[in-house]
Amino acid sequence: MTDLEAVPKEAGPRRKAEILGATLDLLAERGYDELTIEQAAEHAGVNKTTIYRWWGSKPELLRDALLDSGVLRVTVPDTGSLHGDLAALADAVRGLLREERTRALVEAALVGAVRHPALREVVVSLLDDGFTRRQPILERAAARGELPAGFDPGPLADALAGALWVQLVLRRRPPTEEFVRALLALLLDGCRARH
Amino acid sequence: MTDLEAVPKEAGPRRKAEILGATLDLLAERGYDELTIEQAAEHAGVNKTTIYRWWGSKPELLRDALLDSGVLRVTVPDTGSLHGDLAALADAVRGLLREERTRALVEAALVGAVRHPALREVVVSLLDDGFTRRQPILERAAARGELPAGFDPGPLADALAGALWVQLVLRRRPPTEEFVRALLALLLDGCRARH
Repeated sequence: MTDLEAVPKEAGPRRKAEILGATLDLLAERGYDELTIEQAAEHAGVNKTTIYRWWGSKPELLRDALLDSGVLRVTVPDTGSLHGDLAALADAVRGLLREERTRALVEAALVGAVRHPALREVVVSLLDDGFTRRQPILERAAARGELPAGFDPGPLADALAGALWVQLVLRRRPPTEEFVRALLALLLDGCRARH
Repeated sequence: MTDLEAVPKEAGPRRKAEILGATLDLLAERGYDELTIEQAAEHAGVNKTTIYRWWGSKPELLRDALLDSGVLRVTVPDTGSLHGDLAALADAVRGLLREERTRALVEAALVGAVRHPALREVVVSLLDDGFTRRQPILERAAARGELPAGFDPGPLADALAGALWVQLVLRRRPPTEEFVRALLALLLDGCRARH
């Protein structure tokens, strides 16, 4: 496949960002099922071949859109305590979900994930990646003696992500501050008690 | 609409059970999207009008199939401790999910729920109903002093159901004994610590 558009080298990153932004717009508006590479190209004002030069398939495009756009990015807090860090993290996530576009994106990704194995892989890797990037929170907590050394964060991660899913996708309401606080208290006290 | 089949009165319950069983077979095999009342009737060997006499729509039929069939029923244990009760409950749920048909049913219900509001309502009511029927576990625990009196079970319920969903639907593996044990320990120690 030859590329019909002559793109100056420095225009690449900007164009990539535009394509990823257009992809997320469409995902938020229409959901994963209805999203096509053709539409993403049209929405971004580029030729379809430009997208195929960088991404081989819709899930690959989605992965980069969700990961690289920073739309789901949350700074890793360092408040001096495990409770403070997780509460700050929960506030940041709740803040993200208060924005209509982000909530639509997260819902579309979770809903699409159950029927499309390729998107499911993207969501699982986002979940695991998110937890890896937050690993310092747990390491600092272990160093402070707030967690046992070999603490397995797997069940904690899945319980947090899962409770969020039940609220957002099944019950169709963004989690309230009260719910998140109670959930965190429950899980955190659990972590501490296992020490 | 007139009923073309002459059903002796005592045949009603048996025929209902056959229809519900046929509906669950189809749900497990094909998923919610592909399931029709016509197929359920054919599979149960009854006339379509027989189904419509008792159930007005597909979600209503599904609700009764999932609730009344007892396919997801788990006895409420009474072991003398909160930990014992929840561990017994977790074992029973893991036992259910080890059966291929039950696992297929739970997956189909969860997957269908994200796209079909009517099925979502059924799943949420199953979730809440399940928690209500297990309420005695929490009441006995409160009476024994293992839980604070006004303990709000909402976050606990959603964290448990949600963690199960992440494992089953996103990660596509039935939860291991180890995972369930660690999850329970985390949540239980959390409940106790809040006392």
